[in-house]
Amino acid sequence: MNHNEHAPNESHYAVIFTSQRTPGDNGYHDMAEQMDRLASVQPGFLGADSVRDTSGTGITISYWDSLEAIRNWKREESHLVAQQRGKKEWYEHYEVKICKVERAYSSRARSN
Amino acid sequence: MNHNEHAPNESHYAVIFTSQRTPGDNGYHDMAEQMDRLASVQPGFLGADSVRDTSGTGITISYWDSLEAIRNWKREESHLVAQQRGKKEWYEHYEVKICKVERAYSSRARSN
Repeated sequence: MNHNEHAPNESHYAVIFTSQRTPGDNGYHDMAEQMDRLASVQPGFLGADSVRDTSGTGITISYWDSLEAIRNWKREESHLVAQQRGKKEWYEHYEVKICKVERAYSSRARSN
Repeated sequence: MNHNEHAPNESHYAVIFTSQRTPGDNGYHDMAEQMDRLASVQPGFLGADSVRDTSGTGITISYWDSLEAIRNWKREESHLVAQQRGKKEWYEHYEVKICKVERAYSSRARSN
């Protein structure tokens, strides 16, 4: 998924999810795909970028048009189940940071 | 580097750098290490997390105590040289987002 669906000067928010996976899959891959699809159809979802290296360290950033959209996604029913399994089975540890995007630019075009 | 050196409730900022590497090293690895070291001694630097996958997609997030500290690092002399080489040689494309961290929590301890 790429994060390029919103007007660049609109106020928006980023959720930074930094995590370390436990060894083995344990159903993670399927659930991650399911959650990606489900997130992408939530109201206020703008896009996401996700990278995990061979050591199991990952960073996922999702972008949202409001703090309310982020709260609603955190409380979505299937996502709550996934979060519980994540805590118990899939992540050694993780950190979440909710941020307001103040400025953005890229190598292709400066947006502001 | 880990991002755990600041008091959790202080206002701080994140710079999200999402990038796609060009094939080959071309001096990238040495410069990246040098820039990591140099960033870590800049005034206002709080920490960084960095992940790159085998396809060359990477996300680096650095944390700073003010927008001024971010501006100063962007203008640091050796960093300007690295940025120029990055544009020309090391990155197919990149995006930068400057964000204010509003809330943070982790699987270890909730900070707020």
